[in-house]
Amino acid sequence: MATHHFRANLFHNTFGSHEPVLRVAPGDTIITELLDSGGIDAAGVQRASSPNPQTGPFFVTGAEVGDTLVVHFDAMMPNRAQGWAFDHLAPNVVDPEAVPTYSWGGRERVRATWIVDGDRVRLAETVAGIGRLELPLAPMIGAFGVAPPLAQAISTMTSGSYGGNMDYRGFRAGTTVYLPIFTPGALFMIGDGHALQGDGEISGTGIEISFTVQFTLDIRRGGNIGWPRGEDAEWIFTVGNARPMDQALQHATTEMLRWLGDDYQLDSRAAGLLLSSCVRYDVGNVYDPAYTIVCKLPKAVLPAR
Amino acid sequence: MATHHFRANLFHNTFGSHEPVLRVAPGDTIITELLDSGGIDAAGVQRASSPNPQTGPFFVTGAEVGDTLVVHFDAMMPNRAQGWAFDHLAPNVVDPEAVPTYSWGGRERVRATWIVDGDRVRLAETVAGIGRLELPLAPMIGAFGVAPPLAQAISTMTSGSYGGNMDYRGFRAGTTVYLPIFTPGALFMIGDGHALQGDGEISGTGIEISFTVQFTLDIRRGGNIGWPRGEDAEWIFTVGNARPMDQALQHATTEMLRWLGDDYQLDSRAAGLLLSSCVRYDVGNVYDPAYTIVCKLPKAVLPAR
Amino acid sequence: MATHHFRANLFHNTFGSHEPVLRVAPGDTIITELLDSGGIDAAGVQRASSPNPQTGPFFVTGAEVGDTLVVHFDAMMPNRAQGWAFDHLAPNVVDPEAVPTYSWGGRERVRATWIVDGDRVRLAETVAGIGRLELPLAPMIGAFGVAPPLAQAISTMTSGSYGGNMDYRGFRAGTTVYLPIFTPGALFMIGDGHALQGDGEISGTGIEISFTVQFTLDIRRGGNIGWPRGEDAEWIFTVGNARPMDQALQHATTEMLRWLGDDYQLDSRAAGLLLSSCVRYDVGNVYDPAYTIVCKLPKAVLPAR
Amino acid sequence: MATHHFRANLFHNTFGSHEPVLRVAPGDTIITELLDSGGIDAAGVQRASSPNPQTGPFFVTGAEVGDTLVVHFDAMMPNRAQGWAFDHLAPNVVDPEAVPTYSWGGRERVRATWIVDGDRVRLAETVAGIGRLELPLAPMIGAFGVAPPLAQAISTMTSGSYGGNMDYRGFRAGTTVYLPIFTPGALFMIGDGHALQGDGEISGTGIEISFTVQFTLDIRRGGNIGWPRGEDAEWIFTVGNARPMDQALQHATTEMLRWLGDDYQLDSRAAGLLLSSCVRYDVGNVYDPAYTIVCKLPKAVLPAR
Repeated sequence: MATHHFRANLFHNTFGSHEPVLRVAPGDTIITELLDSGGIDAAGVQRASSPNPQTGPFFVTGAEVGDTLVVHFDAMMPNRAQGWAFDHLAPNVVDPEAVPTYSWGGRERVRATWIVDGDRVRLAETVAGIGRLELPLAPMIGAFGVAPPLAQAISTMTSGSYGGNMDYRGFRAGTTVYLPIFTPGALFMIGDGHALQGDGEISGTGIEISFTVQFTLDIRRGGNIGWPRGEDAEWIFTVGNARPMDQALQHATTEMLRWLGDDYQLDSRAAGLLLSSCVRYDVGNVYDPAYTIVCKLPKAVLPAR
Repeated sequence: MATHHFRANLFHNTFGSHEPVLRVAPGDTIITELLDSGGIDAAGVQRASSPNPQTGPFFVTGAEVGDTLVVHFDAMMPNRAQGWAFDHLAPNVVDPEAVPTYSWGGRERVRATWIVDGDRVRLAETVAGIGRLELPLAPMIGAFGVAPPLAQAISTMTSGSYGGNMDYRGFRAGTTVYLPIFTPGALFMIGDGHALQGDGEISGTGIEISFTVQFTLDIRRGGNIGWPRGEDAEWIFTVGNARPMDQALQHATTEMLRWLGDDYQLDSRAAGLLLSSCVRYDVGNVYDPAYTIVCKLPKAVLPAR
Repeated sequence: MATHHFRANLFHNTFGSHEPVLRVAPGDTIITELLDSGGIDAAGVQRASSPNPQTGPFFVTGAEVGDTLVVHFDAMMPNRAQGWAFDHLAPNVVDPEAVPTYSWGGRERVRATWIVDGDRVRLAETVAGIGRLELPLAPMIGAFGVAPPLAQAISTMTSGSYGGNMDYRGFRAGTTVYLPIFTPGALFMIGDGHALQGDGEISGTGIEISFTVQFTLDIRRGGNIGWPRGEDAEWIFTVGNARPMDQALQHATTEMLRWLGDDYQLDSRAAGLLLSSCVRYDVGNVYDPAYTIVCKLPKAVLPAR
Repeated sequence: MATHHFRANLFHNTFGSHEPVLRVAPGDTIITELLDSGGIDAAGVQRASSPNPQTGPFFVTGAEVGDTLVVHFDAMMPNRAQGWAFDHLAPNVVDPEAVPTYSWGGRERVRATWIVDGDRVRLAETVAGIGRLELPLAPMIGAFGVAPPLAQAISTMTSGSYGGNMDYRGFRAGTTVYLPIFTPGALFMIGDGHALQGDGEISGTGIEISFTVQFTLDIRRGGNIGWPRGEDAEWIFTVGNARPMDQALQHATTEMLRWLGDDYQLDSRAAGLLLSSCVRYDVGNVYDPAYTIVCKLPKAVLPAR
């Protein structure tokens, strides 16, 4: 169970079966730095191009098709002081007739700078009405995933069963994620750190910033899971990525039903009673081609696995 | 500011310009009992028919078209010991090909009984894997609203700008709701209490039960709001009702932008920066013809109104 | 089988259980005039208000809940020379970021006048690039339907299982339509004539004009159909009304499968083979709250009924 | 303007920047054979794997990013006697609660064999109610496209701005298609012939069969078109690929507006008046991850290009 300090020289704008940058054993930990979504590093140097350049892929020895990749996010933190965000909402999240008024539809998008200061992040400029808005830092990873099936290479702008650009606040330190494996070695990639983000990434950005991350990769034999799953101290959750949100919710809910059947031996009636009384849905990205809906259950209501 | 103890003899299955059952002054409080969604009262007597029979309408004197109805939920509590819920998920919340396996698509729906016991609610039967699942009581109102515009009368199964069957957990004691007024007197109606509900009402039911409720009705002059708004101690929120969820989210987000402009003097840039860093989306009903999405902001980040 | 020459004095902006204006026997024919969608009659007089004022309801004696209303459109023709249409597309039919450029999103909608001249219709003004565009007249009825279930009264802006504002080009002279009956007497209403319309009514209007129509109403016992059905010399078709289009298509396709089973004794395999090789989908309204998709089969491939 | 008789040995299941199999000059014609969607050739030999194995890519010399690829379908014809189709509809095209009854949701899909006989195609078996259904042959290409942007490689199951699996009946002999070029050489690929297909490919298949095709590739400098465009003797059309259908329709309509502006000098008002009176929408694939909607205008109403 080695710890690898990895420094990337090459970045990818697609999730795909690219040449691995590092081979690790199951249980190994990787500490590395991630560019921001625009390709800028901790020193402010442009080192790759948009969108969401990914570090990796990391080849996990012994990972086979049908196995499950276990990713534990040990730690993540911005590694520079300045982040940025777009200032107007995306045209697709407001009513069509309100686009000219409320979104960047008819105007120039302007980047706002945010300053990370200890465990806080604040606007670098004074904006009428919200001043130098200051908020608690809440670091999260926007995009990560494995190589998609069928030797596809898919833009880091979108997401699917392999993960991708999901922009979900729950992908933070302490969370464990499970991903289906479609390619030997799994070929895990990661990028797009946010100092903070509202639900939906509705301006098209969180507070975009470069990161130092530490994560541990492991394998579970088999599983044949259909969509990303995850857990933290309080919740288990499943992730559906699709448009419209309705379909993303169907994927996430169906994956939760599979999980409750496979690992908790709940039939469709028990699972139905449990979900209809206890489920929570979170909203990940609603800006990118595929939207992300998360289906959650509190661990407190679950039987032993 | 009178308090009215109202006992209903007549119930409605549509939101519409029905004959008022009571005229109240702005600021008055109403204490009444609500049938469950199937029309059963506290004594177990069938007093009206499905779906979601509503008590009211209450005519608020002086309420004019374009004004805003203010509804404060003072208290709500089940008034009998037995509630019920469907046991399988609705076909529309799972992947189409999973309908025969996981939803009630191809089978009989069976009602499960839940027992309210103090501040807890538990299954009346032992279900393999979840036993007699017991959860904290969390009373909420599934459906309420005003008379829709254009003298429409719309089924209590669905929802719109006038409110309706939204099944949102945030409609609980302590919450204040703002509704657009389309008809003199507003004609407020209310029904469909749940002892508890997961997000989305994904089995087609929460824990359906009859209620005693206390609420206070008031008027704000003007406003011309477009969709329901609300607030509690921590949050302000807006509600969009439509299908697909994407459109409900557009309605809710646009209504929040209007609110931030009208009452907090935030222009589209300030509102965009605030929302994209701080917004939370909640999921109301995703079972009925119109789905419900709630757009929330913490009061802590808002300027003074 | 009487022919009624009916002249309306009262118009409705909802489909609902309004007081019948005329009682007719099954097989009777009605000849009447329809206001345009803005409420203007043949003489240019404003006689009712928007949207889509309906003539009726017509009570068909003996029509019971669960029966099927048969509407044959015998003839329809504009009864004045001037129609009108909006000149920019609706914001919801273009990409969200293109709204300010291509739709009326950020600008004033201007009405264009069209002149009916014999069997042609042409722009009254010269528009750069298209001149005085002249097209063959193609009269069709935008909206008609029966009283919805549950004593609802639903805006003539939208549509549902009861019919409503569907804006489908196939609703023209020679077409027979079948509607579910939810209320004794059926309570048929009709309005919103178009001299011509492209698919989708994507500017929010066809060429809006007042009409003289002749139609014949009849009853089929039972049927319990779920959605509007229709036929002409070449096709049978079913109509789904919902958002998104995906759901409207599901409704229309499912109704066609029911029809093929009930009247043509095709099981799901025969119907699947027939539909997957021969189905055509037409697009009705994609502007109003509910969108309309039509599922068609050529009569030439059908077995005898 | 050479004619290349090309015989493929290698096939691809993704649209991507694969090694070109042939370099052709603008204006060159290619005659080749295409496997059916399951990878079977004219002799009934399995030569590649599902889904929709593509022949190509063909590198067009001089084609640069931002140019437009012109594909003229000169001829296409099945090259064997037996095709096949699935017999039940896909679960996603019927109402969710109807899935167990009408779709293959809860059952085995069975392939039906169709026999091509001259210019007709008929079922090889007798099916109750439809017998040995016989229909006119109507050969069309389900899938073709260029290499997607960003060096992506995308499954031949879906579609996008680069083309892909669109399953539109209008892609037949005599049609000319315009595609955006994202990669030097364009890298055109083609496969998935259908002897016939209903709209939507709602069973997940047309009549799947191997083909002989002849097509001519050419380049237009510039263009920077956003989505596939096409024309035949009567129509010009644009293609949008996305889910839900609403978004596909937005893409297609917006691309038509761009085309009307760029090549016909119609401003948004002229284009709005023309489209709202004359547009036709066709439905391509509604089975695959991205749905296809086609926006059409008759050439007869267009000004000179």
